[in-house]
Amino acid sequence: MRKSAIAAVILAATAVAAYAQQVKPENQVKYRKAAYTLMNLNFGSLAAMAEDKKPFNKDEAIRNADFVAMLSTVPKNYFGEGTDKDTKAKPDIWTHRADFDSKMDHMVTEAQKLPAVVRSSDMAAFRKQVDEVGSACKACHDEYRLK
Amino acid sequence: MRKSAIAAVILAATAVAAYAQQVKPENQVKYRKAAYTLMNLNFGSLAAMAEDKKPFNKDEAIRNADFVAMLSTVPKNYFGEGTDKDTKAKPDIWTHRADFDSKMDHMVTEAQKLPAVVRSSDMAAFRKQVDEVGSACKACHDEYRLK
Repeated sequence: MRKSAIAAVILAATAVAAYAQQVKPENQVKYRKAAYTLMNLNFGSLAAMAEDKKPFNKDEAIRNADFVAMLSTVPKNYFGEGTDKDTKAKPDIWTHRADFDSKMDHMVTEAQKLPAVVRSSDMAAFRKQVDEVGSACKACHDEYRLK
Repeated sequence: MRKSAIAAVILAATAVAAYAQQVKPENQVKYRKAAYTLMNLNFGSLAAMAEDKKPFNKDEAIRNADFVAMLSTVPKNYFGEGTDKDTKAKPDIWTHRADFDSKMDHMVTEAQKLPAVVRSSDMAAFRKQVDEVGSACKACHDEYRLK
């Protein structure tokens, strides 16, 4: 993805953050869960290709990568006040917000790199970037998500 | 690739499956519901702008339109066999499949037009296209979705 496009996505995501405070807590939880569900579906496909558990299919990988890049920007907007119910999100998120946001931003940054890497058909770069994204997801899950 | 990182991210064993028929029915329902939830969020924003219920914000509208266009392609893949439980989907879907698929395809076709229309900043065209997509959604909901 071009840098201008990345900047646009991140800017728009920031703009949505303020609006999130107006979204009912139960809907915020619903939106972030939906995003994670589809991220899991699409990143799972990329990871399977990276690990040779299924054949690399470029069209499918592009679709998966575009989905992960877009969806990655969603959850951060929906961890507002009162969204600590009916969730695996640990209360630590709201007491360590700067660290949580930093980990989330890192995941978004790494996810934004997937579309270009997949289109390059450079398999070593692809595997490396899938690993970067997976590690970024794991960093947040380890700290802020109930098992 | 570190398998631990990937394993932590792939929460459902079926997430690696490439095709709907390989995905467990309960996961298919989960994936299509997640897509509809985020389509509703993003299309709701576009509809509010089209109806002057909130100010037109081009960056936000582009983000919304890109999301709707991408997400619109998801549900059709997840109305496989055995996905008629824990859902508002009517059984008629599986007895009138050609008609259901045709209505679904029409919605996808109209949703694909949103990103270009929003970028054009032609407000009349924007309102018309939001209406087209809304009508395409409604056609399927009226026939195939429980109230």
